[in-house]
Amino acid sequence: MIIALDAMGGDFAPASTVEGAIFAAKESKHKILLVGIEKILVGELLKYRGRYDVKSLNIEIVNATEFITMDEHPAKAVRQKKDSSLSVCARLVADGKADAFVSVGNSGAAMSAALFYLKRIEGVLRPALSTVFPNIDGHCIVADVGANVDCAPEYLLQFGIMASLFCEKVAGVENPRVGLVSIGEESTKGNELTLAAFELLEKADINFIGNVEGRDIPGGKVDVAICDGFIGNVILKLGEGLTETMLKLVRKELKQHPITWASLPFLWLAIRDLRKRVDYSEFGGAPLLGVEGVCIIGHGSSNGKAVKNAIFAGAETVKHNIAAGIREAILKYNNKVV
Amino acid sequence: MIIALDAMGGDFAPASTVEGAIFAAKESKHKILLVGIEKILVGELLKYRGRYDVKSLNIEIVNATEFITMDEHPAKAVRQKKDSSLSVCARLVADGKADAFVSVGNSGAAMSAALFYLKRIEGVLRPALSTVFPNIDGHCIVADVGANVDCAPEYLLQFGIMASLFCEKVAGVENPRVGLVSIGEESTKGNELTLAAFELLEKADINFIGNVEGRDIPGGKVDVAICDGFIGNVILKLGEGLTETMLKLVRKELKQHPITWASLPFLWLAIRDLRKRVDYSEFGGAPLLGVEGVCIIGHGSSNGKAVKNAIFAGAETVKHNIAAGIREAILKYNNKVV
Repeated sequence: MIIALDAMGGDFAPASTVEGAIFAAKESKHKILLVGIEKILVGELLKYRGRYDVKSLNIEIVNATEFITMDEHPAKAVRQKKDSSLSVCARLVADGKADAFVSVGNSGAAMSAALFYLKRIEGVLRPALSTVFPNIDGHCIVADVGANVDCAPEYLLQFGIMASLFCEKVAGVENPRVGLVSIGEESTKGNELTLAAFELLEKADINFIGNVEGRDIPGGKVDVAICDGFIGNVILKLGEGLTETMLKLVRKELKQHPITWASLPFLWLAIRDLRKRVDYSEFGGAPLLGVEGVCIIGHGSSNGKAVKNAIFAGAETVKHNIAAGIREAILKYNNKVV
Repeated sequence: MIIALDAMGGDFAPASTVEGAIFAAKESKHKILLVGIEKILVGELLKYRGRYDVKSLNIEIVNATEFITMDEHPAKAVRQKKDSSLSVCARLVADGKADAFVSVGNSGAAMSAALFYLKRIEGVLRPALSTVFPNIDGHCIVADVGANVDCAPEYLLQFGIMASLFCEKVAGVENPRVGLVSIGEESTKGNELTLAAFELLEKADINFIGNVEGRDIPGGKVDVAICDGFIGNVILKLGEGLTETMLKLVRKELKQHPITWASLPFLWLAIRDLRKRVDYSEFGGAPLLGVEGVCIIGHGSSNGKAVKNAIFAGAETVKHNIAAGIREAILKYNNKVV
């Protein structure tokens, strides 16, 4: 499989992206297209001389003369910078020269590039960014987590159809339980948006279990949690922050009771596993569902491991031909209601 | 101080409410009015015979012939059941026979009763339910957490003014940092509602520090986090759920590595402190800001300790005369912009 990587995007790019590409090439048979300013990328790859036989790895540099920074206006930057690493990545997929593209840079710009070059799947109103959230049994898919901050009920319906399909195909969950994020379980609880979306989701050909509350996401009550991108983004970042804070608090408390320090060597194994469980770099990236082609968007603060996992997430998504499945499901729903 | 307690409301009422009243009466000089069906409450109090000298405690039963269940329609129930424990509680405050009322029952009905009998403070558009959320340094106030699911920008502005005042007076934080919950720090990030609210909050006479993200709430970046009641409710419940899930995961991980069990006796002290830190029953209840008089709304699943703390939260709020402060601040803002 050929994966195009926006090597210039991300808080720690190009160090993190080049490292991620090397990890991915070493651990898989995928071909990685490192897209960015050639001179910089060659220099970065040279740093690995002696450690790895870089030349033998399945990595190819694709030159792009510009790049988009984290604080640029997404749509404007994509329109103006036709030769940015992101735009080149998206075109590689649109032209069939890559199977997927991955970016851990400006996420708004990555979405814009996907929309601009890959186009929306016919019938899809808005693409949704869906990500995994750790829960008691493993993970839950949350969509949307930031692509659409103001939503119509119909968007939430489609997020439900798309994310359910993604959860079934890529995460391998049979008949995934889809819940609508709200403020109470009863169908009468919610705001204007969710009350209207509830009625639509009930009629969709998915396993809709009704409203779920904030606690049900980590609690394992649903496999897919649907919400607008504003709420999804708050949920995602609160989850990250709370996990960090809890670990800090544990450390702080342990310091206040010196006697507990004696137990630390024994705790090491448990803490290592727990970290892994709640470590977002393990999941790598979030697919943008609803575009023709695969686009994976990762956390700006991704390290090499996270970039590698985003590349693998891209390959996994390609394997299951999600776009075709979404096209079919949306068409089926639209035909049913017309 | 005289606190009226809705003794019939709550998942474990009247056992939890009567226990909470006994705890509060024992630990303070407040007079507790136990409002509810007299026969039931007398029976409940009798259970404490032998353990406590109930008669010597400053507790008085106030009879109410009806009560409102958790699943009744809030406004309708309050309008129809004039002699419900909740309505009687609210009237006791309105008539000056109690200084505050506390309920851990149907929270929508408690708000309706407060609005119906206590009335809104002049100039206040919507009252806000504000609660404390544990963070790395202690706590952060979040408002609104469920009173208003669909908001106008002006509501969020007033939530900021009211919650800032509450944080300053009751929590004792000087010049509290007020943040608007959004999806990025930049003022250009947000949805339609927050973008408009940002402009208003900037002009208010509070220490507005701009947008904050989900992670900043537990991270300790703000003393007051402002959002609509839908988001606030999701934040609150996600926080509860995630904390529970983390503790469960720790236990699960420890079980998988039997060697770590040896360390458990040492960990006990740290875990006890940590639990207390994140235990919502420590804070008891959330004040409904913006009504004439004090109304404290607690968690439906409150136990006796949580009810006691809700009673104390009511007394604390009365002491600082929050309603007068809010009246003045809202008037001042309205005069400035007119």
